[in-house]
Amino acid sequence: MVKYDLNDVKLNEMEEAARRCSGLAVSMVARAKSGHPAGSLSSMKLYLAAYDMADLTPENCDGTDRDYVVISHGHTSPAAYAVLAHNGFVDPLEAVADFRRCGSAFQGHVERAIPGIDWGSGNLGQGLSAGVGYGLALKKRGLDRHVYVLMGDGEQPKGQIAEARRIAVAHGIKDITVLVDMNDIQISGKVEDVMPVNVEALWKADGWAVLEADGHDFRSIYRAMEEARGMDVPVVILCSTVMGKGVSFMEDRPDYHGKAATGDLYRQAMEELGQPDILVEVASLGDRVHYRGRSLEIPAVSIDIGSPRTYGVEEKVDNRSGFGNALADLGSLNCGVEGRTPILVFDCDLAGSVKTASFAKACPDGFIQCGIQEHSTATVAGAASCCGVIPVWADFGVFGLAEAYNQQRLNDINHGNLKLALTHVGLDVGEDGMTHQCIDYVSLLANTFGWKLVVPSDPNQADRATRWALADRGNVCLAMGRSTLHPLSDGKGKPFFGGDEAFRYGDAHLLRDGGDCAVLALGAMASKAMEAADRLSDKGIEIKVYAVSCPLEVDMDALKDACSTGNVIALEDHCARTGMGSIWSSAAAEAGLTGRWSFMGVKRYGDSGPSSDVYEAMGLSSEGLVAEVERLLRG
Amino acid sequence: MVKYDLNDVKLNEMEEAARRCSGLAVSMVARAKSGHPAGSLSSMKLYLAAYDMADLTPENCDGTDRDYVVISHGHTSPAAYAVLAHNGFVDPLEAVADFRRCGSAFQGHVERAIPGIDWGSGNLGQGLSAGVGYGLALKKRGLDRHVYVLMGDGEQPKGQIAEARRIAVAHGIKDITVLVDMNDIQISGKVEDVMPVNVEALWKADGWAVLEADGHDFRSIYRAMEEARGMDVPVVILCSTVMGKGVSFMEDRPDYHGKAATGDLYRQAMEELGQPDILVEVASLGDRVHYRGRSLEIPAVSIDIGSPRTYGVEEKVDNRSGFGNALADLGSLNCGVEGRTPILVFDCDLAGSVKTASFAKACPDGFIQCGIQEHSTATVAGAASCCGVIPVWADFGVFGLAEAYNQQRLNDINHGNLKLALTHVGLDVGEDGMTHQCIDYVSLLANTFGWKLVVPSDPNQADRATRWALADRGNVCLAMGRSTLHPLSDGKGKPFFGGDEAFRYGDAHLLRDGGDCAVLALGAMASKAMEAADRLSDKGIEIKVYAVSCPLEVDMDALKDACSTGNVIALEDHCARTGMGSIWSSAAAEAGLTGRWSFMGVKRYGDSGPSSDVYEAMGLSSEGLVAEVERLLRG
Repeated sequence: MVKYDLNDVKLNEMEEAARRCSGLAVSMVARAKSGHPAGSLSSMKLYLAAYDMADLTPENCDGTDRDYVVISHGHTSPAAYAVLAHNGFVDPLEAVADFRRCGSAFQGHVERAIPGIDWGSGNLGQGLSAGVGYGLALKKRGLDRHVYVLMGDGEQPKGQIAEARRIAVAHGIKDITVLVDMNDIQISGKVEDVMPVNVEALWKADGWAVLEADGHDFRSIYRAMEEARGMDVPVVILCSTVMGKGVSFMEDRPDYHGKAATGDLYRQAMEELGQPDILVEVASLGDRVHYRGRSLEIPAVSIDIGSPRTYGVEEKVDNRSGFGNALADLGSLNCGVEGRTPILVFDCDLAGSVKTASFAKACPDGFIQCGIQEHSTATVAGAASCCGVIPVWADFGVFGLAEAYNQQRLNDINHGNLKLALTHVGLDVGEDGMTHQCIDYVSLLANTFGWKLVVPSDPNQADRATRWALADRGNVCLAMGRSTLHPLSDGKGKPFFGGDEAFRYGDAHLLRDGGDCAVLALGAMASKAMEAADRLSDKGIEIKVYAVSCPLEVDMDALKDACSTGNVIALEDHCARTGMGSIWSSAAAEAGLTGRWSFMGVKRYGDSGPSSDVYEAMGLSSEGLVAEVERLLRG
Repeated sequence: MVKYDLNDVKLNEMEEAARRCSGLAVSMVARAKSGHPAGSLSSMKLYLAAYDMADLTPENCDGTDRDYVVISHGHTSPAAYAVLAHNGFVDPLEAVADFRRCGSAFQGHVERAIPGIDWGSGNLGQGLSAGVGYGLALKKRGLDRHVYVLMGDGEQPKGQIAEARRIAVAHGIKDITVLVDMNDIQISGKVEDVMPVNVEALWKADGWAVLEADGHDFRSIYRAMEEARGMDVPVVILCSTVMGKGVSFMEDRPDYHGKAATGDLYRQAMEELGQPDILVEVASLGDRVHYRGRSLEIPAVSIDIGSPRTYGVEEKVDNRSGFGNALADLGSLNCGVEGRTPILVFDCDLAGSVKTASFAKACPDGFIQCGIQEHSTATVAGAASCCGVIPVWADFGVFGLAEAYNQQRLNDINHGNLKLALTHVGLDVGEDGMTHQCIDYVSLLANTFGWKLVVPSDPNQADRATRWALADRGNVCLAMGRSTLHPLSDGKGKPFFGGDEAFRYGDAHLLRDGGDCAVLALGAMASKAMEAADRLSDKGIEIKVYAVSCPLEVDMDALKDACSTGNVIALEDHCARTGMGSIWSSAAAEAGLTGRWSFMGVKRYGDSGPSSDVYEAMGLSSEGLVAEVERLLRG
């Protein structure tokens, strides 16, 4: 490949680029009076080499058939922006002017809003997982593409990195090259003093080839990268570097990890780098924000969602099977079909319980076993979702969301298209007990601004929501318990959600009308609410029951109607103070809707026992609801 | 040590115990028709050996001067309960009768409510961190004690395990022995098929000695444990075992990972184990719940909290420095003082930013550098908090809570006594940008039932809250931004929180009275609210301002007073839909308090820039508040 041919002319150009980019990076930090200059300088030639080597251009960077570059040590953003400017992705002066400037896309840690940035990082230790996710998606799409990942040495102890290494090896992802900036300095001092890590042995133990290079010698870096491309295993190149390289007073000094050189020191730095005082030129640009970032559209997918399955009201089916059966249908309809977006189903050793085993059988090629490594799996699947596949990760709620919460938050920040199927949510985990009860799924996703959350009310809705979710653009979570239940009835013996009507995100459904009190029942709680409604009706009390399956999207018409009764009960298999009730009652308070509220949910850690017993002990039974309605009506 | 002397008599007793305990374990699962029998059988002799070897008895298990046993693969609880019964901690028949029974302490995954269980697990991969936490606390207390950790092989890929290994080695924790049940089977099949892990190489690379043993041969296990005790590094013993050992139809079969043997199969199993049908005897106990668990009291600490520092209203101080200075005071007053509970301050490479550097300088022995390994650090510090020390972990909000959320939840379930100091919360992170903005700290801890959360309003309150937190029993989180601010004034030029009055958890403070509108201002937002109040007063609008620093504890008097104005604004540097406002407005709705609410908080991911700019762009400025009050009053 011609790119490896580092002849003298090219070498000179690259050396000149390194000096220019170093000047830009130092200038950014000086202008913002904030940022990380020294790590940017030690990583500079690694950035230049990776972006030179990768088939990643301003023209193709919005597409998905190309090489990828992932930056894990996101605080070295000045180097990234400088190199992207050098390669024509962004304007160099705008990058300097806007760096860490409110309203600009040039954030302190790299974000995808900047063209050429493939993963927004900041939390250390997640970049390799993103790189592996891209590598996996490219491989499954049959593309002969390469992924480059840039990392720091300070982040090497993060456990998620080891998980990602193993996923790469287990799935034969070879077209990935990692460059580690071994500058040996982190905030608190020398890396070996802060937390010793046997980097080489660990990468080798996980099946990677380890090469070494001089991170300030382009010939050495290119030679290693060329060697890496020819190997049959994924490769990490440990690049020895000097923190602050090229600026005498920053070299090998921990204090310039996160400190600007300003005034005379800035000018000295630029002189040492052989660069002009860029800040003078930048000042002439004026004080406005120059670049607010590209818009990140999630590419359309091509998928046949088939026809919904309908479960009769006499059957007893669990929502997770409603999901799993629909997923298997989608697999059969789409996997291996020309022109369809590949569906990848991720598992962390729970396929039987989370009902993805049928899919795995129908589409073994689309089934990705990641072992008990949830942190990395969340990011691998999240990055894959940005690369022309539809990833579905099914796991217990505590593992897929509570453990991997920060990863799911970063999937949101990265505008992912992940489909997260959580089973065993709420108290409905069977006998596993309190550690396994995911009573925070509404609350956790409510902290993000992009995630959609569907808590299906019954298996018919679970089926329809699954088909909708895979075709929808953006991160979607389905949250389901473990128990079987009868599908909701339309009152005439037919399934309420039985028709051909597609799932519509944001609709609450009036299951029963009444004027004495309203119950907003989240997900499978709707059945219990309907049982209670029958009993109350026998006593002459008529309640409204709304099935709420989209807790993050307040259906204002339903809310107004509920509040019109004067008494609203939020009934949910979720922590009572942080769930749907808190969101919907806040919306009522904001809209000035009056009425007294009651929050029926989980108010202590739950017991270990059959779900029905655990619900009853928590007061979340139809009897409990009857009693609560009567208490409210007594005033 | 006499315990290693496994003479023939003792060996016979142990073999008999293994058969009896295996029978108990199989009976528990049969009775509950749920649970994990096969892994319990493969781990059985490891449990027996560890509890035999450890100086851990029914008499000393509530104290902290003793050996510790931590179970990481918590789903093998039947083996744990059986061995604890064998050693007199619990009643064997009650364990069988109550296993996975609603209301009983014999949960599906082990919990500390059972005497002899030192850490409640369930989420895999966390047990080693807990063991290291105990080892660290024992070492810092100068006790010659030992920690045993039992693990499964399926969990070996979890990244947190590697982090814990390194923390142990970095801090010279040698009195720890890990027994890994290498039964080679996890839910989805053979371990090497699900996710290959080079277990031996990884433990060695992290500096541990690796021994091997036959997990079904007591002599082999004891020999390895004896060898381990003599070594100068921490030791892991890889114990080769057979899944389902002793019951022919369970041996080496993945399907008995989590399945009960009932009816004839149960009787066959008991026959093969040479045990009577225990279920018959258990049936005679009747149907009530027998054992609800021990009460877990957090031991009193001995600490001199000194006298508060008071910052004058003309000074500008950041809350994190208020915390850091108080912490340094506490260090100077207590570290090395005879009879005082040791304070351990944990750091993940951010001491300068989180203001623990002064403590580190004053008390180097109490400063625990854990490197960039937040998941493990959270559990290490959490477990240490149950072992006679006061751990303080200071970190950025996104790292200490959002990344380690599940660990903090387990610290709550485990009734810990951790002091978590989060800095850089909200948008107040300087220029780091959206990935570093922890806008969910209220929401995350609101999902737990034990954590207390204090968001100090100013540095004077931060000082007092810090002193209170270290002396208080239970997990306490302090959440603070990065910016400096003037201490709140009492209106007469003196600091509002300046007196000798101790911090009282749960109080909101009326900073200013007025009848047109009320503002509930979380933490440092109080200053902005007071600025707005001045401006509004100039326009003839008088608002109430409450400083809220305990968002999880609704001060009902304050709330009623606020609602009496008819217009309440929740002002917080937090996701608007999940923060203090949602909790307090829900409480108002529940109490039937009327009034229109407005939720001023973070409504999209924030910008990267100086905090004041970022606040302004989000509308969280005093001008923004003035405008919102006027909007509300217009109706």
